[in-house]
This record gives sequence, C-alpha cells and structure tokens, in this order.
Amino acid sequence: MTFLFNSDARRGAVFADAFAKELPDLPFAMDAATVDPDTVRYLITWAVPENLTRYRNLEVLFSIGAGVDQFRLEAVPARVKIVRMVEESIVRMIQEYVTLAVLALHRNLPIYLAQQRAGEWRDVPQLQAASRRVGVLGLGQLGQAVVDRLKPFVFPLAGWSRSPRGIEGVTCHHGETGLEQMLAASDILVCLLPLTEHTRGLLNADLFAKLPKNAALVHTGRGPQLDHEALVAALDSNHLSAAMIDVTDPEPLPGGHPFWSHPKIILTPHVASIAEPATAARVVIDNIRRHRVGLDLIGLVDRTRGY
Amino acid sequence: MTFLFNSDARRGAVFADAFAKELPDLPFAMDAATVDPDTVRYLITWAVPENLTRYRNLEVLFSIGAGVDQFRLEAVPARVKIVRMVEESIVRMIQEYVTLAVLALHRNLPIYLAQQRAGEWRDVPQLQAASRRVGVLGLGQLGQAVVDRLKPFVFPLAGWSRSPRGIEGVTCHHGETGLEQMLAASDILVCLLPLTEHTRGLLNADLFAKLPKNAALVHTGRGPQLDHEALVAALDSNHLSAAMIDVTDPEPLPGGHPFWSHPKIILTPHVASIAEPATAARVVIDNIRRHRVGLDLIGLVDRTRGY
Repeated sequence: MTFLFNSDARRGAVFADAFAKELPDLPFAMDAATVDPDTVRYLITWAVPENLTRYRNLEVLFSIGAGVDQFRLEAVPARVKIVRMVEESIVRMIQEYVTLAVLALHRNLPIYLAQQRAGEWRDVPQLQAASRRVGVLGLGQLGQAVVDRLKPFVFPLAGWSRSPRGIEGVTCHHGETGLEQMLAASDILVCLLPLTEHTRGLLNADLFAKLPKNAALVHTGRGPQLDHEALVAALDSNHLSAAMIDVTDPEPLPGGHPFWSHPKIILTPHVASIAEPATAARVVIDNIRRHRVGLDLIGLVDRTRGY
Repeated sequence: MTFLFNSDARRGAVFADAFAKELPDLPFAMDAATVDPDTVRYLITWAVPENLTRYRNLEVLFSIGAGVDQFRLEAVPARVKIVRMVEESIVRMIQEYVTLAVLALHRNLPIYLAQQRAGEWRDVPQLQAASRRVGVLGLGQLGQAVVDRLKPFVFPLAGWSRSPRGIEGVTCHHGETGLEQMLAASDILVCLLPLTEHTRGLLNADLFAKLPKNAALVHTGRGPQLDHEALVAALDSNHLSAAMIDVTDPEPLPGGHPFWSHPKIILTPHVASIAEPATAARVVIDNIRRHRVGLDLIGLVDRTRGY
C-alpha cells in the first residue's frame, strides 16, 4: 500500500516530511518509474496520468488543486474516489484576491493606472460602496468565504448557485431565471464557478449584455469559461467598464493577445489561489485517515456534477 | 446669524438643501460678496480666506476635509473654534483604499502590472498573510477603522500613535522608541498621520532604513510627510519593494516626476478619501445644533496638537 506523489519536487519534499511524521506506516513514493503499480492505493496529481489503469488497486485520486476540471473524469475508473483540494490557504488567498479585485474595480484603479502611465492627475466620479452591487457566481465554500470578506464594506451582495442557498446578508439566486435576475443587478460580477459542461463559455456576449452598463468583471474561475473576444468587445464598446482576470485559455496567454495591453484589463497569471504545501499535506493526510476508517472524504467529487 | 459656505457649487447645493430642511432659521449664504460679514457665525471652507478677520463674530470655522493642515491655524483668532470633517464616507473610503493598497502590495500587484505591460506570464513567490506584518502610523478614528478591515485577513497588525492606545488584536506602540520598534517589524507600512510640524518629512531615508528589507509603503497621509527622492532611492536600491501613493507634494504632481513612471509605484491623484456632501452636511448641521446648546463639537481641533 503506497501513496504516490506526482507533482513538483518542492511540494513533494513538504509532503514527504509530513507523511513520514503523520503516516509512517504508509510508504510514500515520488518516482512512478520505481514503484510497483499494484501497491499504489493513493495518488495525488494535477493531471490524470495517461497510464492510470496500471494502478489496478488505486482507491483515491487526489487533485493537488482546488478544481478537478483538468482531470478527464471519464478516464478514471468508477471505483476510484476523486477528491479536490479543500484547504484553508486556497480559501484565504481567494478571499484576498477577490477583495483586492472588487475594491480595485470599485475604486477605478484601471483608470488611475492608465492616467499614471499618461502623466494625468485627475479624479473621476466615485460611487459609494452602498450603491455598488456585487454579484458572485458560485456560492460554494469559496463563494461564501468571499462574501464574508466583502460584507463589512457594505456593498449590496448577491450570489448565484446551481441549487438554492440561503446566506445571511446575501440575496441568493439559483437556476436560469435567477441568473438573469442577478446579472441585471450586478455592477461588479465575480466568477468563482468550477469548470463543467454547464459553465464552459458562460461568460460570453449574451451574458455581458445582461449586465448593467459600466459593469465590471472579476474572473477567478477557469479560462475556458470566458469568451475572451466577447470581453474585449464589451470593453471597447463601453458596455463594460473594466475587468480583473486571473485565468485565461490557453495559459500562459499567447504573446500579442489583447489582454496584455488592454487599458481596462488588469491581468494576473493564475495566482489568485494556490494551495500551501504544508496545509495541503495535512488535508490529504486527514482524508487518508478518514478513508481508512470509512468516513466521508472532505472534497469528494460528485462525478455527475463534475465538481 | 449666517452660515457661509465657501467651496464648490455642486457640494454647496447639497448643503443648501440640507440646511433649508434641518436648520430653516439659520440663513445660508454661498456668496461672500453679498453677505454682511458681521452676521457670519459659521464658515465652512477648504482654505482659510485671506480676509478672515472681517468676520468679527465668527464662532466656528469648519474644514470641508478630513484634515486642517491646509489652514494656517495662527491666522485664526483664538476665540474661533476649528472643526475638522469627521464623516462616515471619509472613514469608509479610507478603509476601502487602504485595504485595496495593502492587498495589492501583499499580492505583488505592482510586479504583475509590470509583467502584464511586458507580456510576461510568471508567478512570483507569495507570502501567506499570517507572515506579512502590517504597521499603521496613526491610530485615531481612521487608523482604528482601517485595522478593523485588515483584521479578518489575519495579517499580524501593529500601530503607532503619539499617545498610548490599546486596541484588541493590534500591537500598539507610541513615542520615539515605539516608532523604531514598529518600523523594524512592518513589512507593509501604512501612513495615515495628519500633517503637523512633527510629521512633516517623517517618511524619509532614515525611516525607510529602519524598515525590513522588501518592505512596502502605503501613503494616504499628506504629501509633505514624504521625502519623494528618498522613496525612489529606497525602491531603486531594492531596500523597499513597492509603494502605493495617494498624496504628493506638490499636487498635482509635476510632469516628468519619477512617480509617474516608476514600475514599483502605484499612484492615485489624492482620491483615497472624499467627504460625501449629503453626509458631510448632516455632520455640520449636527455640530451646529451641539454648539447652540453648549455641547462639545465632534472633530474639534486641539490647536496645540494641530489636529
């Protein structure tokens, strides 16, 4: 019975230390070439290896990231449990990034950055936070953590999820009709959705047209959810005012892409949220202990939903 | 007995409406040329007018801004009470701006902005918030409101003020020795101090040398507190990592000044905090009512401290 770590060596060293201390009876391997595949019960990885079927006794496949959209779920045998990373650093970092992005758009930072480059000193009209409606796509663990941080700033908050939710201080919408209602009342739209067949291409020209004029976008979901050309068109026609974008398709973004130089776009290279290796290792160890005694796994993926 | 409004017409119209409704017995004037100076008991202004002594019966001089450093206090007769603007929009806006600035520096936004301009997609090492110490210069109403917003992000927080303070969850320092202690432990230093003879030029090469290597600066105090050349030198020598600056000396910043183009500086044109006219009017009306019945005025300036 072996735990196979299939990711970068820097994180691997942190995992190896933690496993040696916490699960000394579980062999820990970082080199797939030298391990007997029949012994592998647990595998952690970013992408599903091509030769996954060689691990005939695999029981749990862990994602090293918050999402599992990079997994080809259909390539994973039905008996294998799939677990996404649910870890406090991911949550804290997404709280930081989205608060930063919402405040940057609320306080017109893209305009001031462009003015700085042009040597212009001029204030622009500033809405009060109480008049700036923020709508969050996705009210799972990350979405709920994000609205917690935004609440004290007195932005009117709304959120949308597939299934109904109730969160104090947040106008909660769900389903197709709920989505349209929330979009019409979102001056800043935040996308935190997982990538699924339902969310691929969701942020497109149709959706942007349903937002109020001068709305802004924070995108920390996944690149393929966003129609990049439609965003540029909505900014250039002055329907949308600005965007802060952390994920693109493809990544890295190719040279010459309009996002690099667009004055209304702040672009970051997929850094909104990264699991901290030490706490990620603790979470995985905790889940292996749960698995061994038959408890539900934290972050178990529902294959029919895709997240 | 007249209230004289000496500022821009847009705000004046909001004040006029509020005074007509709330203090209909108090004549409201916006044109100093047509008012009998002997009737003026209350004056609101940004700068002290040259001919202030003509208002022989002036009782209260209100600043339309959060500070009174733009007043030449010695030009104001001793019998006149001086009141700065204490207003919730000012507090909320400074909370927004400083949270935005601290998160931007914590999350390496200046580096990512420079990379975006250069077409580079590369993540940089990211400290956890629990390892990023934030020190706030000034623990009055604004400083306390700011630490309230920063607390949930789990930054270790410290603050410095002239006189001792106690704030839960904040390591409070005061006096000369306390300042040195706090500087040595501030990875992000936030200046919220009023401009006085003690704070003029405070942010200079000596102070920067006392900060840890790679520290960053948020400056939302007043321009003359900052030695602009010393900041550029500290950034260029890689002692400091970045800065977000809202106030300069002079304002507007002259063309060709290094702050416009410095890749480690985010510059905004003195927009961190602006009183919202409707709530500012309510605050002034409330203070006039307090004055009439002999209560202490909210925001009364202590002339010996200068704020």
